[in-house]
Formats: sequence, structure tokens, C-alpha cells
Amino acid sequence: MVLDEIPGFWAVVPAGGAGTRLWPLSRSHAPKFLHDLTGAGRTLLEQTHDRLTPLAGDRILVVTGAAHRAAVRGQLPTLPEDAVVAEPSARDSMAAIGLAAALLEARGAEVMGSFAADHVIPDPERFGASVAEAVAAAREGWLVTIGIEPTFASSAFGYVRQGEPLPGHPSARRVVEFVEKPSVPVAEEYLATGQYRWNAGMFVVRPTVLLDLLAEQDPGFAATLRTIAAAPERLGELWESLPKIAIDHAVAEPAAAAGKVVTIPGTFAWDDIGDFDSLATLLGDDDACSVLGDETLTQLIGASGIVVPRSGRTVAVIGLDDVVVVDTPDALLVTTRARAQEVKNVVAALKEQGRADLV
Amino acid sequence: MVLDEIPGFWAVVPAGGAGTRLWPLSRSHAPKFLHDLTGAGRTLLEQTHDRLTPLAGDRILVVTGAAHRAAVRGQLPTLPEDAVVAEPSARDSMAAIGLAAALLEARGAEVMGSFAADHVIPDPERFGASVAEAVAAAREGWLVTIGIEPTFASSAFGYVRQGEPLPGHPSARRVVEFVEKPSVPVAEEYLATGQYRWNAGMFVVRPTVLLDLLAEQDPGFAATLRTIAAAPERLGELWESLPKIAIDHAVAEPAAAAGKVVTIPGTFAWDDIGDFDSLATLLGDDDACSVLGDETLTQLIGASGIVVPRSGRTVAVIGLDDVVVVDTPDALLVTTRARAQEVKNVVAALKEQGRADLV
Repeated sequence: MVLDEIPGFWAVVPAGGAGTRLWPLSRSHAPKFLHDLTGAGRTLLEQTHDRLTPLAGDRILVVTGAAHRAAVRGQLPTLPEDAVVAEPSARDSMAAIGLAAALLEARGAEVMGSFAADHVIPDPERFGASVAEAVAAAREGWLVTIGIEPTFASSAFGYVRQGEPLPGHPSARRVVEFVEKPSVPVAEEYLATGQYRWNAGMFVVRPTVLLDLLAEQDPGFAATLRTIAAAPERLGELWESLPKIAIDHAVAEPAAAAGKVVTIPGTFAWDDIGDFDSLATLLGDDDACSVLGDETLTQLIGASGIVVPRSGRTVAVIGLDDVVVVDTPDALLVTTRARAQEVKNVVAALKEQGRADLV
Repeated sequence: MVLDEIPGFWAVVPAGGAGTRLWPLSRSHAPKFLHDLTGAGRTLLEQTHDRLTPLAGDRILVVTGAAHRAAVRGQLPTLPEDAVVAEPSARDSMAAIGLAAALLEARGAEVMGSFAADHVIPDPERFGASVAEAVAAAREGWLVTIGIEPTFASSAFGYVRQGEPLPGHPSARRVVEFVEKPSVPVAEEYLATGQYRWNAGMFVVRPTVLLDLLAEQDPGFAATLRTIAAAPERLGELWESLPKIAIDHAVAEPAAAAGKVVTIPGTFAWDDIGDFDSLATLLGDDDACSVLGDETLTQLIGASGIVVPRSGRTVAVIGLDDVVVVDTPDALLVTTRARAQEVKNVVAALKEQGRADLV
């Protein structure tokens, strides 16, 4: 299958998020999306760009923190200067994606799709097919989300509840509601119904539709975004007045309740690499020890889990199952896959101790 | 109790052994005895010297590998030049201690005691009292070993089987036999009898008695040692002709069989820190995580075992019990106390891979 560029389609890439559960790989000065976490030789941001270019050509807009703009441009040198928008500060996903929508609306873009910079999608062609179908529905005025088929009862993701099929579209379905991250038992019930999919935060929509949906909930928010788009020099002045809210709460949930959202069931594998446990799942099988990096730096005897040798030092692991060892030049993490969520507690402790140099 | 110097007593300190089960702390260029493994701020060699000086004054002779002579002199700067004897190569303990005996015999020393440079004895006064009693027996011509009271059924040590008390001495007993490292069940039987003590390789004896006992088994060996003592410039020429054999096999076992050995029951705690498991036992209790080094470099959440932060980097450990984490500038070890013996396999693998720089 060869993907065709989708006419009038713009890809928006919000490149944010600290990824503290991937410390000490992910740092505030070099968050998750700037790293090669799959051993592909390309960072997550680069892979996201690689995946979107066949669909959008050079119609790509990256929204990132001011502190990361130079790094983003360094990793994506073919993007023009104005394709990387710097947020003065992190104000959650509605402000970031809304700003992109306003800028694209001003440029007369027909349809946009927002795809986080730090997700892993091994099959770009299936992904592209889902995006193409999402764009087709979005052109009709729908807010479209690509819903991922759940592979287990995850409590780490929000879910989309599907309703009736959308006539005239191969696989699109109406969205009944978005639901927040459930407990595992509730997630199990969701899976048993066959009606739920993971909400991966992939929204495809006409920029004007998105801003108008926002305006229904918060007219000032939408108006300020449009003001910034018309007068970009006012970004610094107006940005801090924007609410800090996720796009799910600001737009997707109320729009779903109003019957204005459809979902395309994505048939591709997807991962947001929330922590080292999911990274280990992504990289390997349960019996072996995955090495993310130079295997010749490792000496493994009776070990399983994941080892990340990133300091150039030799790493020897003996007799530990499901272990996580992440070796960087200034910090070392040793834990287990089961406790990988608690890595964020170390980051919090270091912050509290004033160790900004380490987080 | 203040210890008195023991007249005519010389302390011999064999400073050898690779300590590969303590890699990556212990290296071929910097073996175990050169390290501070107890957090006392003094290396094992320095602590050995500290322990022996009250007993022997300046009558101390260190026998070490030529490669380590400079490091030994650096750590023991008060020793005179000729107090540190360099072996041209490692030829096991009989050659090392036998050379010291020959040199001391030539100097007219009355009694010598041999104490390894890498043992830990927290109570120097009790140790000194045992040495004093051992010297008293050695003056009468006995080969005296200080036998350590076993605290568990160890399969890592050889044992001394005690016989009848030696008349005229407070606690000395005849030695029936030396036995090699037993299995744990056999060691349990030993302990149940109450007749066995650990052989810590501490021998106290008149130099002439030791060399004559050796001569009974291997006249050429003893003669060559005496030749070297008389003409030290021939050390390099003659050294490689000496047999590689432990003093236990060469002298202690046959002497015990001939009824010429007594033991002093040491009442002091003792450890030879064979691996990181025994180091963890030495340093801490079972529920906590011991840190050998700068605690401010560690972030520990739900961890027990031992962490050795020696690279200056921050070490975070989450949710692992009985773990061993040893962080050095060029190599990192992660294992468990139960698997600590296998560290030597990593060293063997690195040697095989030609990584002499790491071992």
C-alpha cells in the first residue's frame, strides 16, 4: 500500500510533556519526544515526522515549549522556520492545539490532525489509512478521533465509547462519550462490551470547527487564540491568560455529548510509552532482557526486563527478572517493571531537594 | 583494655588476592585490600595496619605483588622502604608467607604472625588478646592458628577441628585436623559438634619452625626461600621456581597430622568479605538498604540490600529487596545478594572478551 498525500490536510504535532516516568532518560531539558526509545535510530519526534510527511507533505506544524524549539528544529531540519511554534509556557493541550488551529485557520487550511510527538506506531501505512478516513469525515464538519483498539484492560488511558456507524463512511462510528482513565476492573468491563476504544488524543477536524466548538464552551479562549493568529506578535502578551485545560475536557467531551464527534477505529498498534514497563513490553518478549542501546556494553546473566546503557559504561546484571536498569552519565535508575510507575516519585523527590540539574 | 606491644613479635601481612567477586569495586589494578569496604574512612589494608601496630610496633612486613607495591606504600607511608616486599608474581600463600619467614629468620625475629590484608575485625582489642596468647604458644615451638568461632554453617571457609586443651595456656587447644571448605550440611554437622572453628588463615609461628615444617614436606622450597633471604638480589631469578601452593596444604595440614599445631579460639567478630552478600551482612540489617559511600547520592524507595555509589552519579533504586548496586566510573553491577557469588562469572566473561581495562 502506498500512501497518497491528503489534499488540504495539515498535521499538527504537539511536542510537550515531561515524561517523568521515563527518568533518567527523559529530562525537563530533553523530554521523551527528543529520544530514540525504540532503538530505530530515530527519535520519537523524528518518527512522528516520518509518519506524517507522506500524508501531509510539508504541511506540518509543531507546537513545542520555547525551551525545546531549538532541539526540535535540530531534529527536523527540513521544516521551515515558521513550522515550529514556540509556546511561551506549557498551558496544556487545548492552548497548544487551539493555537495551531487558529494559525491554520488564518492560513486557510482545510483540515488538521493532531498527533502527539511521543507516540509509537510501528505501522505507518495502517495509520495513514485511518487518518485518511478521519479526514474524510472531518471535511463534513465532524470532530474526529482515531480510537485505538485496546489490547488489554489499561487503567492508564481514557476510553472512547462508540455508538452507531456513520453512514457513507467505511468504518466511522458516532462517539457516545469520552470516559476518563478507569480502574482495571472497569476497563475490563469496557473491553467485554466491545464498544470502547483507547483515546490516544488523535483529533482530526477542520480548524474552524475546532475553534467554534471551543467558543461554545469558552468564547474568550477561542477569541484570544484567533487574536494571536491575526497578530502573532501578541503571543507573549496574551498566552498566559489562556486557561490550562486538556482538549478532551475543553472540547471533545462536550462535543461528544452534543453528538458532534465520530471515531475511526484505528487498526494499527500504538503505544505512548508511559513508563519503562510499557517500553519493555514494546521492545521485547517477557523471557529475555531487552537492551535499548549498545548491547556490547552489557553483561547479562539470568536477567530479564530492560537495560538502557546510555553512559558508555559497562552494565552487568545478574539474576534479576523484570528488572529496569537505566544508565545515564549523571544518574542511574534501578527498579522493576512492576514498580516503574514510581519513577515519578524519584523525580518529585529530586525536585524537592533542589536538584534541578538532575530532572 | 590497653594492648601491650608483644616483644619480638613481627606481623606479616600478605596483601594479595584479586577479589573478583567484589567487581567492579575490586579490580586487578586495585584489589580488595586497597579499598575502604566498611565505610570507616580507612582501607582494609590501612585497618589491618592499624590493628597490628599496637601489637608489633614498627615490626611489620607486607608482602604484595610488584604491581601493588607503590599503592601499598602510598597507603602505609610510615612503613620503611624495606617493610614492603614485592613478589615478582603471585605464587600463592606458601611462597608469600614463606618468603616473609625467611627474611625474618635472617633478621633474627623471634615470632611472626601472618594476617591477610583484606579481613575485617571490628574489635582490635580482642583480636590483640588472641594474638598475644598465640604468640605465647608459638614461642614454645607450636604452629599456632587463630580459629574463628563460626556464626553460621558457612561453605565458604575451611575449618579447624579442635582437640585437647594445651596445658599451661588459657584457651589453646591441639588441632586434630584442617578440613577443606565443606558443603553446608557438613558444615552444620561441624557446628553441632562444637569442635570446629573457621580457619581464617591466621598463623602465628617462629620463622624457623615454619621453614623447618616446610622443609619436612619440600626441602627445596624451604632452601630456596632461605637462599633468597640471604641474597635478596636473587629474588627475581629464583621466585618463579617456587611451587604455587597454599600454606594450608604445604605446611598446616601435614603439621596438624603430626600433632604440631594448636589453635587459639578467637572470640572476636571476623569477616573476609568474600562477596557483596557478606559485605551487606557486615554493613547493615536485613530490612534496610546499606549505602557504602555518599548517602546523598542515593534515592531509595522500598529498597533493601546494598548500594555502593562510587561514580559521583545519583543512584535511584525502587522496589527491590536484597539488591546489590555497585556504581563505578566505568562499570555498573546490578545483582541480588543471593546471586552475588556469580559476579566472578562477569569478570571471567570480560577477561575472555579481552576487556582487561575493566577487570
